[in-house]
Amino acid sequence: MNSKTKTLTSNQKVDATGNIFSTANSLIVNYRSVRNFSREICKTLEHEDFVIQSMPDVSPTKWHLAHTTWFFETFILSEFQKDYKPFNPLFKYLFNSYYVQVGERFPRPQRGLLSRPTVSEVFEYRNYVDQKMAELLENTDEKTLNEIKKVFEIGINHEQQHQELMLTDIKHVLSLNPLRIQFSNGENIIVKSVPELNWISFDEGIYETGFGGEDFAFDNEFPRHKVYLNSFEIANRLITNGEYLEFINAGGYKKQELWLSDGWYTKERENWEAPLYWEKQNGEWFNFTLNGFREINLAEPVTHISHYEADAFARWKGARLATEAEWEIAAGTVNIEGNFVESGNFHPVPLHENHIKNEIHQMFGDVWEWTSSPYVEYPGFKTLEGALGEYNGKFMSNQMVLRGGSCATSLWHIRKTYRNFFPSYARWQFSGIRLARIKI
Amino acid sequence: MNSKTKTLTSNQKVDATGNIFSTANSLIVNYRSVRNFSREICKTLEHEDFVIQSMPDVSPTKWHLAHTTWFFETFILSEFQKDYKPFNPLFKYLFNSYYVQVGERFPRPQRGLLSRPTVSEVFEYRNYVDQKMAELLENTDEKTLNEIKKVFEIGINHEQQHQELMLTDIKHVLSLNPLRIQFSNGENIIVKSVPELNWISFDEGIYETGFGGEDFAFDNEFPRHKVYLNSFEIANRLITNGEYLEFINAGGYKKQELWLSDGWYTKERENWEAPLYWEKQNGEWFNFTLNGFREINLAEPVTHISHYEADAFARWKGARLATEAEWEIAAGTVNIEGNFVESGNFHPVPLHENHIKNEIHQMFGDVWEWTSSPYVEYPGFKTLEGALGEYNGKFMSNQMVLRGGSCATSLWHIRKTYRNFFPSYARWQFSGIRLARIKI
Amino acid sequence: MNSKTKTLTSNQKVDATGNIFSTANSLIVNYRSVRNFSREICKTLEHEDFVIQSMPDVSPTKWHLAHTTWFFETFILSEFQKDYKPFNPLFKYLFNSYYVQVGERFPRPQRGLLSRPTVSEVFEYRNYVDQKMAELLENTDEKTLNEIKKVFEIGINHEQQHQELMLTDIKHVLSLNPLRIQFSNGENIIVKSVPELNWISFDEGIYETGFGGEDFAFDNEFPRHKVYLNSFEIANRLITNGEYLEFINAGGYKKQELWLSDGWYTKERENWEAPLYWEKQNGEWFNFTLNGFREINLAEPVTHISHYEADAFARWKGARLATEAEWEIAAGTVNIEGNFVESGNFHPVPLHENHIKNEIHQMFGDVWEWTSSPYVEYPGFKTLEGALGEYNGKFMSNQMVLRGGSCATSLWHIRKTYRNFFPSYARWQFSGIRLARIKI
Amino acid sequence: MNSKTKTLTSNQKVDATGNIFSTANSLIVNYRSVRNFSREICKTLEHEDFVIQSMPDVSPTKWHLAHTTWFFETFILSEFQKDYKPFNPLFKYLFNSYYVQVGERFPRPQRGLLSRPTVSEVFEYRNYVDQKMAELLENTDEKTLNEIKKVFEIGINHEQQHQELMLTDIKHVLSLNPLRIQFSNGENIIVKSVPELNWISFDEGIYETGFGGEDFAFDNEFPRHKVYLNSFEIANRLITNGEYLEFINAGGYKKQELWLSDGWYTKERENWEAPLYWEKQNGEWFNFTLNGFREINLAEPVTHISHYEADAFARWKGARLATEAEWEIAAGTVNIEGNFVESGNFHPVPLHENHIKNEIHQMFGDVWEWTSSPYVEYPGFKTLEGALGEYNGKFMSNQMVLRGGSCATSLWHIRKTYRNFFPSYARWQFSGIRLARIKI
Repeated sequence: MNSKTKTLTSNQKVDATGNIFSTANSLIVNYRSVRNFSREICKTLEHEDFVIQSMPDVSPTKWHLAHTTWFFETFILSEFQKDYKPFNPLFKYLFNSYYVQVGERFPRPQRGLLSRPTVSEVFEYRNYVDQKMAELLENTDEKTLNEIKKVFEIGINHEQQHQELMLTDIKHVLSLNPLRIQFSNGENIIVKSVPELNWISFDEGIYETGFGGEDFAFDNEFPRHKVYLNSFEIANRLITNGEYLEFINAGGYKKQELWLSDGWYTKERENWEAPLYWEKQNGEWFNFTLNGFREINLAEPVTHISHYEADAFARWKGARLATEAEWEIAAGTVNIEGNFVESGNFHPVPLHENHIKNEIHQMFGDVWEWTSSPYVEYPGFKTLEGALGEYNGKFMSNQMVLRGGSCATSLWHIRKTYRNFFPSYARWQFSGIRLARIKI
Repeated sequence: MNSKTKTLTSNQKVDATGNIFSTANSLIVNYRSVRNFSREICKTLEHEDFVIQSMPDVSPTKWHLAHTTWFFETFILSEFQKDYKPFNPLFKYLFNSYYVQVGERFPRPQRGLLSRPTVSEVFEYRNYVDQKMAELLENTDEKTLNEIKKVFEIGINHEQQHQELMLTDIKHVLSLNPLRIQFSNGENIIVKSVPELNWISFDEGIYETGFGGEDFAFDNEFPRHKVYLNSFEIANRLITNGEYLEFINAGGYKKQELWLSDGWYTKERENWEAPLYWEKQNGEWFNFTLNGFREINLAEPVTHISHYEADAFARWKGARLATEAEWEIAAGTVNIEGNFVESGNFHPVPLHENHIKNEIHQMFGDVWEWTSSPYVEYPGFKTLEGALGEYNGKFMSNQMVLRGGSCATSLWHIRKTYRNFFPSYARWQFSGIRLARIKI
Repeated sequence: MNSKTKTLTSNQKVDATGNIFSTANSLIVNYRSVRNFSREICKTLEHEDFVIQSMPDVSPTKWHLAHTTWFFETFILSEFQKDYKPFNPLFKYLFNSYYVQVGERFPRPQRGLLSRPTVSEVFEYRNYVDQKMAELLENTDEKTLNEIKKVFEIGINHEQQHQELMLTDIKHVLSLNPLRIQFSNGENIIVKSVPELNWISFDEGIYETGFGGEDFAFDNEFPRHKVYLNSFEIANRLITNGEYLEFINAGGYKKQELWLSDGWYTKERENWEAPLYWEKQNGEWFNFTLNGFREINLAEPVTHISHYEADAFARWKGARLATEAEWEIAAGTVNIEGNFVESGNFHPVPLHENHIKNEIHQMFGDVWEWTSSPYVEYPGFKTLEGALGEYNGKFMSNQMVLRGGSCATSLWHIRKTYRNFFPSYARWQFSGIRLARIKI
Repeated sequence: MNSKTKTLTSNQKVDATGNIFSTANSLIVNYRSVRNFSREICKTLEHEDFVIQSMPDVSPTKWHLAHTTWFFETFILSEFQKDYKPFNPLFKYLFNSYYVQVGERFPRPQRGLLSRPTVSEVFEYRNYVDQKMAELLENTDEKTLNEIKKVFEIGINHEQQHQELMLTDIKHVLSLNPLRIQFSNGENIIVKSVPELNWISFDEGIYETGFGGEDFAFDNEFPRHKVYLNSFEIANRLITNGEYLEFINAGGYKKQELWLSDGWYTKERENWEAPLYWEKQNGEWFNFTLNGFREINLAEPVTHISHYEADAFARWKGARLATEAEWEIAAGTVNIEGNFVESGNFHPVPLHENHIKNEIHQMFGDVWEWTSSPYVEYPGFKTLEGALGEYNGKFMSNQMVLRGGSCATSLWHIRKTYRNFFPSYARWQFSGIRLARIKI
């Protein structure tokens, strides 16, 4: 994941202070770091907070903590650790998410009906598996380690994905509580203004997209392949709350001609009049954030909108969303940097006004950017063998691709070729808008 | 509630050891005793258990604990305590169940979406209100005390009703967990057999039913009034699991001619093949009880059946359920005694084989007995003034009356005229069957 | 059904002009008269009108025409006619309503999905069965005729019930059509005012209710039995549109304290703000009637209201609905006469102002009167043997009794002991309000 | 639509026998031909058949007949005919499908609740509009005619689309009737075998897709644009019932690993075990066709399958569906010919065994071919101005593209660039399978 490591032998890595690690050590350090962060995320929660499933898409926090542990237990310990004794045999059933080939699963919409195992028991489960994992990694030969490594990397990235879901899920849970619980203390950053919206051009021609490197990437990013793009332009920055508010005030939610048909009926059925978590009080818009309930910050990137809303906003602006190929080509021109989960903001932040308007900003972090591309396989796509083949491929139906990561994503988790995906109606992720258009 | 007290002055009562109490003391003792029992019921629960709402009819345990507290805060402290400062002003909204005249309410089906207040905070709330109640009762003049007393008695009885619901609700919650949680340690009592089923006769004529005493009773038990009954016979005991199993084995759940039309469609939709909590494993029937998952005890009264099932069973037996008037007349011939919540069994128990077959047994405790009477007002019924008028009257629609109390009811709570009521499809209460028939 | 017949021998009847009929002739005349009336009802309909099922409770007109024919085919021709060949063997399946013991049935909510048999084919089916019935009745010995007669009378009364449903169902169908179809030409009768609302008193005591005669009555009217009634008063007439409009204007639909809990939630879910078929245009109330869409006639009895609305209205008036026993006792004091289907009004009509205010009016015809009595069995009730035992008994759950017949009922069909029943939420029948109260 | 016309002046066309038409005559002939065919389709229907809406996706036949008429009335007569008087002003509301800019619409799922206008009235409506259209076309100057022509061509193509829907909708309606109605008399063609399944290769490179001609095409086919395709292979023919039966017999409907996640849950919820209209009787598969209920013809192309089933079948075969670009490139190599609605078969027919296995067959007609492409806009797509801009664009969400036309499509209606689209779960269209795969 980091170019410095490439000159070492394949089972050695260098850490930030120049120490060389063996593969085992490297995996263990990586494992501890990611696993600890899951616990870190929960530090302000009460035991009761871990239990709630506020809608079918949301899972209880303790379920996430147990499921990510189940992943290592099922795909690594049970496979590679001789005579491995599961912490509790029923957990195989309780914490399997959707891996049919692994066996029966407790029904997803009922995850919030389980008070047991308790939070303490789930942490015991984590400790048990963490210790067994450390033992396994320390005592395994290099050849087996390399076999383990492939699954291990999925496990680590899987846990990072669930860390993001833990944040978006607990946000949804807490948002429903009239007591207005504050999860964290991220700052509400005030800027005078944001750089003017501007368009960056790309020429038509054959481009390449998809992952072509040697490090880890998910199967859905393969293979790298050619695409033909017409010339296009992409916005230099994300759309702000202020710009989105103009859309609301201009009657955007009442003009059917701006909306996809599905989007309009969803909006009507769900009574959407603003992004999720926005609430009008005495004529002023507030929103619920993990840092508290507060007045809308107009300079912040708008977030918690569905694909339908992003698409309608773009049409209102005489623009459109970028395709995922366009987005990826544009992303190729900038570095991966931005407001990620490591910042501890847990919320998108405004772009400072002194950023140059002729460069592309905010491509990574802050909010996932809805593209106009349905989530389908790349030409020549192959799923992994076995149960892990269910990881991505079977979801390639009725979902849209999002790109770039958010304030709830780990910096180490994201790539320029990373493909996130959600149904068009989903709003509880940190999702936002970057405009594109045909080159004029 | 106890005839010995009637010779004292109206503000004095005698306790079990002969001490005379003032009204204030009497109320305080009563209050503490009932309030402590709510806490007692929860002693084996983990914090996570208090949070779950396993179906819309069920409320989280911490909601029950808070709502019963809200009742005293709203109807007594806010009314009678000068300058009363609520523990948390939002609780008025969060813990109102259905009292429209008290204001807006948090939606019932979403009670399980609230992680806060935490269990600890709910117990703090209880302590706060308990202390304020003690202060109020200790420092109030006799005249005001008598005014308070009317509402106070409702509050006490209300909390007892919720204690029963706490038990039936937590049973439902725990039953859904594949980890098979055991709540309590009640004994599984084994008897050789139960007394033979026998019929006790009553002559036709004018009878009186409804409450005519001076102690507390709910408004729905008033007024005492005349009814004309044809001669009838009532069974000497409850129907057992063994007898109900015969009904199952005889295809009772497959013979539409035995069922009410609504009942049949409910059964089909819900896939009922046995009482709630019954589960067949390798050809043997087990049931989930608060004392653990165990094989069916054939001598126990059958429980957790709907009115539809009770009605179909009775038809299969060539009998019917008693009307509530018949039941009340029959109950008039026996004492209020039986297996109540104070026994700590939390489950119905078998009738010992040495009980005389020509007497009526098990009229009180063990299981609520479904009657054939829809829940309607008595002739001349009046609701209470104000918000408490919503307590009973507005539910007189599409519900059936149950009589006699259960193993989850307080002995002190029940009366011969007590009218419980649930919709015909309800199964999560401790409900069972006593047969009746026209006199032959 | 008519006292004059009682002096003849059991197989002879006298017609209106004094002719004496044999049993066979009597049955044939009765059969033709009732069967022809079904056809008469449809005379203004287009073929397309016969096909529609506008909600699950409604059946297509051609279904009614076929089902009533199926009844005679199944319960009489197939039983008593040797070598009877059904018109079409599949009709047994298509036109069975709910008789489980007769076999499988086409699903009720899908009756509107069948374009075939066509209307013409259904009338051919009727002709075929009518001819076979005539042949059977003409050629059967007296003893068998008497056996047939029991089922025959049910068949005739059954068809009359479906005639009422044909009218209420087609009304519902046509009401949904923006083209405002007019079914009939009943007059809109204008009166200056209606007699003042007044109370008629009855003393407390033992009364008898239920059918005790020798002519036909449904099983649910048996047996005649004693009831004890407290003294009560009943209104001298039905509630008018004008009085109901006062309730609406007084905010009756917005005051939760007036409503049963179930009623309130039904009203909210269904957005009820007035009786079914009422529509406000430019501040004036209109209603859709079978005689056209027209302004509300304030003097007409209010109709198309649910039990919930009748109950709330009564509470608002400081009164209640009568129990079915009270209603029946009151009905015993008047003759069966009123605005029935034979009048051809197909709508309730105003009570003329010159009716005496100290007498009971409108007990029969115009609108079915909701009682406060849930529909349950009388003491000693027995269902018929065989499939016809399913006619009434199995519906004794979650329904309320209505009494007195309506403008869509046949005069010859109604009795003082007649028990109609519908769920509390039903509004598409001609249902209305008569008040009662405890004697003051 | 036909290259011969290109050498004439823009307002002249040549018919099959060499006559030259003026624009007006050409439009009138075209109009009459298409309009008459709508009536032709209905010739075997009874009036009752025109009324039914068997599911929300289906519209009653008389609705189609009226809606297509409404289209000409709204977009041509009301725009271009001075003082045009609508046949019935309410029809504007009743027969608008989804054009928001034209005004309010009667709700789609309730189209089956309208018995009026009757079938006869709908045909009167058609006659009225047809006459007005003829008058308009005959009396309009060339310049206006050319303006009209753009909308006129949409109107004609629109009616052809509804002709296809009339056939698939009436098929669904009749299929639900246990009386097994036969709509037409198409032959059941028997062949010895079909040509072996074979693969036709295409090289990787830049291709062009989308409509580039001057005749009529829908907006969603524009603009013609470049795409980059990897090398691929496409099957020489459609998948047959026999091949699909192998998939069923191999447990294809029970192997979750073959299915998209959405597809699996849809299949489970809907209890799919075979294509729509298939029914097993005594171990043999039959299917309902417009030509009657008959045994499966193994050589026929499989039809009435969802995208989910097509996708699962392809995966089972180690192949995939073609993208729409691949399909269009392959279609460029063959002529538009096949089994269209004009053949009067109203059902797909087997490919004769003497077709060469190295050529592509059945690309047009028989069944719409599901592609693997979600329905999205082409780069640079623009909707039409005004209400007709709602024709296609707003449906570009959660639908998949189908190509090639079916046995219910008009030959004159289809193009190589034609994009049909339905949600993945849709099965009531004549939809089938052509396999593709990466070049090996």
